[in-house]
Amino acid sequence: MSLPKLNGFPEEKLTGEQISALQSAARDARISAVTMVAAAKSGHPAGAFSSMEMFLSVFGVARNLTAPQSDLGERDFVVVSHGHTSAGAYAALAAWGFVERDEVRAHFRHCHSAFQGHVTREVPGIDWGTGNLGQGLSAGVGFALAQRARGHRGRAYVLMGDGGQPKGQLAEARRVAVKEKLTNVVALVDWNNIQINGDRETVMPCSLRAIWEADGWEAVECDGHSFPALYEALRTAGQRGKPTVLLCHTVMGKDGGPMEGIPDYHGKAPSPEVYAQVVKGLGGDPEVLTRALEARKSAPEYKGREVTLPPVPSLDLGTPRTYEGPKASDNRGAFGKALADIGALNYKKNDRTPILVFDCDLAPSVMTGGFRDACPENYVQCGIQEHNTATASGAAASTGVVSVWADFGVFGIDEVYNQQRLNDINHAGNKTILTHVGLDVGEDGKTHQCIDYVGLMRNMFGWKLVVPIDPNQTDRATRWMLSTPGCICLAVGRSKLNTVTAQDGKPLFAGNYRFEYGKAVKLRQGRDGTIFALGAMSQTALEAAELLAKEGVEVTVWGVSCPLEVDLKALKEAAQGPILTVEDHHVDTGMGAIMALTAVREGVKLDKFRTLGVSRYGTSGSSGDVYADMGLSASGIAAAFREF
Amino acid sequence: MSLPKLNGFPEEKLTGEQISALQSAARDARISAVTMVAAAKSGHPAGAFSSMEMFLSVFGVARNLTAPQSDLGERDFVVVSHGHTSAGAYAALAAWGFVERDEVRAHFRHCHSAFQGHVTREVPGIDWGTGNLGQGLSAGVGFALAQRARGHRGRAYVLMGDGGQPKGQLAEARRVAVKEKLTNVVALVDWNNIQINGDRETVMPCSLRAIWEADGWEAVECDGHSFPALYEALRTAGQRGKPTVLLCHTVMGKDGGPMEGIPDYHGKAPSPEVYAQVVKGLGGDPEVLTRALEARKSAPEYKGREVTLPPVPSLDLGTPRTYEGPKASDNRGAFGKALADIGALNYKKNDRTPILVFDCDLAPSVMTGGFRDACPENYVQCGIQEHNTATASGAAASTGVVSVWADFGVFGIDEVYNQQRLNDINHAGNKTILTHVGLDVGEDGKTHQCIDYVGLMRNMFGWKLVVPIDPNQTDRATRWMLSTPGCICLAVGRSKLNTVTAQDGKPLFAGNYRFEYGKAVKLRQGRDGTIFALGAMSQTALEAAELLAKEGVEVTVWGVSCPLEVDLKALKEAAQGPILTVEDHHVDTGMGAIMALTAVREGVKLDKFRTLGVSRYGTSGSSGDVYADMGLSASGIAAAFREF
Repeated sequence: MSLPKLNGFPEEKLTGEQISALQSAARDARISAVTMVAAAKSGHPAGAFSSMEMFLSVFGVARNLTAPQSDLGERDFVVVSHGHTSAGAYAALAAWGFVERDEVRAHFRHCHSAFQGHVTREVPGIDWGTGNLGQGLSAGVGFALAQRARGHRGRAYVLMGDGGQPKGQLAEARRVAVKEKLTNVVALVDWNNIQINGDRETVMPCSLRAIWEADGWEAVECDGHSFPALYEALRTAGQRGKPTVLLCHTVMGKDGGPMEGIPDYHGKAPSPEVYAQVVKGLGGDPEVLTRALEARKSAPEYKGREVTLPPVPSLDLGTPRTYEGPKASDNRGAFGKALADIGALNYKKNDRTPILVFDCDLAPSVMTGGFRDACPENYVQCGIQEHNTATASGAAASTGVVSVWADFGVFGIDEVYNQQRLNDINHAGNKTILTHVGLDVGEDGKTHQCIDYVGLMRNMFGWKLVVPIDPNQTDRATRWMLSTPGCICLAVGRSKLNTVTAQDGKPLFAGNYRFEYGKAVKLRQGRDGTIFALGAMSQTALEAAELLAKEGVEVTVWGVSCPLEVDLKALKEAAQGPILTVEDHHVDTGMGAIMALTAVREGVKLDKFRTLGVSRYGTSGSSGDVYADMGLSASGIAAAFREF
Repeated sequence: MSLPKLNGFPEEKLTGEQISALQSAARDARISAVTMVAAAKSGHPAGAFSSMEMFLSVFGVARNLTAPQSDLGERDFVVVSHGHTSAGAYAALAAWGFVERDEVRAHFRHCHSAFQGHVTREVPGIDWGTGNLGQGLSAGVGFALAQRARGHRGRAYVLMGDGGQPKGQLAEARRVAVKEKLTNVVALVDWNNIQINGDRETVMPCSLRAIWEADGWEAVECDGHSFPALYEALRTAGQRGKPTVLLCHTVMGKDGGPMEGIPDYHGKAPSPEVYAQVVKGLGGDPEVLTRALEARKSAPEYKGREVTLPPVPSLDLGTPRTYEGPKASDNRGAFGKALADIGALNYKKNDRTPILVFDCDLAPSVMTGGFRDACPENYVQCGIQEHNTATASGAAASTGVVSVWADFGVFGIDEVYNQQRLNDINHAGNKTILTHVGLDVGEDGKTHQCIDYVGLMRNMFGWKLVVPIDPNQTDRATRWMLSTPGCICLAVGRSKLNTVTAQDGKPLFAGNYRFEYGKAVKLRQGRDGTIFALGAMSQTALEAAELLAKEGVEVTVWGVSCPLEVDLKALKEAAQGPILTVEDHHVDTGMGAIMALTAVREGVKLDKFRTLGVSRYGTSGSSGDVYADMGLSASGIAAAFREF
């Protein structure tokens, strides 16, 4: 019996024939799911069975899921937030023809197969790779915001388990959905009341209805194993002006015979005997497993679809601004002005990529107020809820809108490292601006000094990081960032800066200068050694060079704005003399450490190499005092160089 | 008028005289607060004014705040979660005599002063350093759990702003407080309805009463500027069997004349004119500022109290277990058994330090079930709420109980990096066990592979990290960890391991072996070069050495279990020949990178040095397949060595 078309809810109610076809598909999909887990000897069968009718219903009604994420229109999104129930999701996708049933049964959790242990975007129908609980609803919020920015209303369906409901990030996502009136977000909770350690109310009591309603959602309880009930609830969701959650009453391991209701099968494969009982109970033939295991002897052929970064944005990048003279601007201000410029030039132009800017109640400090005023409908105030914002801005970016989130360094990366890691894994391509990084948040003290952002970004594989040297470079790096695919982080301090000039006195990063990722910039030429300085610390390094020059010591100064990429040519040139690296960053995990490792790998001999940076948590005081206290004033740098 | 003693609520109601004295103190404390901010030209005056009666009331009623945190008894705890209102907290502490008023007025946010921009434990009366919003309630939960573990019921007062209420971590803390019946936790929200971007209901609508009640708290609304109302609400909190939150209606910048109700003064110092108006309005003399500025010309004398790690625990460490033979145990199992052993030996012995073990619904995987069964009252099941757990386990540890949290690597550090950073800053001394680290979570795939824990820990200054080589070393490292002060992380994989033997065939980490932090262990001696391997990867490295030996290539193998500390002697010895570093960790941020930097700094010449590790997100499959795919099988390691 083939499955009926349900996309976009063609009828008000399912017919008896449709229901029979779906029930038959559910039996077959459960056989697929348990076969996958048995073949892989690993996986999460009980949740897969519990969510099966939810999976089949959502993948059935959702529209155009195989279109690229950037091709919005009538496209819906599906987020499987309880990514460990992947066997159920893949089985349901196979039932609807998204993937091949036999391929899935044979190659679940098989090295190089598309069908990984936790759902990934490589599988058609899966819009967000998950597995770390609590992030999925934020991804749904991000998709809905991206839809709105493009003038569409496609839905975002988010399926979740009940055990993960207490995660705090969910509450954040709920509030943003309500505030932004995202009635096109539809959440489904698999309410089977069992989690790893047993009964949900014993492990962590939490009234599901109360917490969703407290945040302003409409909560609808329904039988999570009834196709007509799910169809009706899904069809009418959001019609009453609120985002809707379906609290789906289910049975863990439903229709799984000896697995039904047993917490142990949360994450355990069935024995051959249990497997046979389960499959027979579903009206199937346990030989299915034999065939799957036979096929599994070969390497998986199907690798899934290729997931790439979102397309290059179409934007008018305007004309760079030029700042001149001492203390002309702070870098965050230069970022804010460039962002506002580009926002205004492209706002509501239908042929251009929309820009979405996220704020967590810090607009006056992170300088996104100019954009907000120019493009009010594309500015999303998320309140003090960074975890949701990190994921939502990532998911929105993955649809191809230019998604920008500016926050203090400690909130934009330290607080949400794992969310940014998942964004990287998902090839999201979001842009994060970290302000007040390094010691340049002075008085706010150690809890607010973000001295680890290079080290954190270095732990991921896809992020690019730019730490501009002056406002002119910040302006140009901002325009570059907004027009470049990929996850990119721009990190700036708080204080007003000088305009860096060439030896001829002209602004170095103005005129024909174009920002080029990965290239260090030689600011001064000397014969007695080299200082590599990170971002705005280059300005202090230049002052140190002047102090040294007065003593007849002439140093070359390189400004490094891309610490994750070592400019090998510059390093080799400098290695002939002493090298001092200077950064207001943890001295063991920043630019200096990266240069040392690169030198060792590349066989560049470093006879005299010293790293100057942050070697303990900083003090609280004026920026000048805090830098001096850490040995990072101009005289501190000069003194360190003199030790060679 | 001197302040009346209120500690422990001596009377049912405040007298008129007491109220007058408090009101007078509030006026003087507001003068202190605005003077601090004006003298520092930086700070957050409006919130300080808004919370002033709350601060004075709480610091007034709390008992024995100046006792060491480990000296519980009738000691209460105070957490100022909105740490940016530090000027208000310090002013109130000065009013009660915890610190010197003139010292505070002069040296707020002054380099090396105790009075940092965000509250820190160096100031007597402050029990937890904060500033990153949303963590304070979790700290209060941790203090209350520690109290209970010691058989006491001292209260934990947690003061918060309203802008930070949407942070998800708060919901997690609320639920744990209710589940654990922590009626001794009393929360106070400064409900002034204004945050940085303006009106709270516009920035992020959130029904304060609804969200606290949905999680099972008693919510009491009161006038946050009325001493009698605050006294009554504080006195009766928790008497009705639930944790209680006081939703304190306040006015931002209250009694601050031109600052009152103006969002801009959230984080801005007043101009001299505004300052004078404010002080005059409070019946004070603006000359106060002149005197403060005069005193500020000198460096601050008062550095605050010294904050040290919690004391060495008193525990019976029992007898180490010895595992023999192939696949004798997994390291997580060896950890779990040692923990359960020590738990049983010390449970409910009054002369011993209590051990608290936290779980986030993963006990069967992280192997804390043995402890739970032996010590049920010291086991805290927190559900899937890692942010709260990280902070609560840290705060509990800071009181001197042995506080242990075991979780998958990606949840115990990636997800909660910032909470662990604040634990470090607070000298908490908590113990975190990361299980399933590296690629050894195989089938679960890239979202669950924790390949960055060394790099993350390396970004902080206080953490120690141990990655044991086999179950015997895990057992001994566990016993060492539980008896050693400081933040310590034990990181283990999932798979069953062999017992590592010396060349004589006897278990190497058994018998008289004692774990020594920072020491690498030579597992095999060879003449043709050296492999340094991280933790359990040492076992694969030994297999690689056997493969190479068959070809006549003899390599030295060092097992490294303390990657943050380079064993310089071993490195120097090895540097005479080729060195290969091997780890199932990000190849740019792990052990190899740390060794390279150390070599460069120490002038150790590395002619042939290669780092083998994780160079992209891993695949999903059996551990063997996933390692082989990354070039980290025995044959992959041997092949890499052959390239020298």
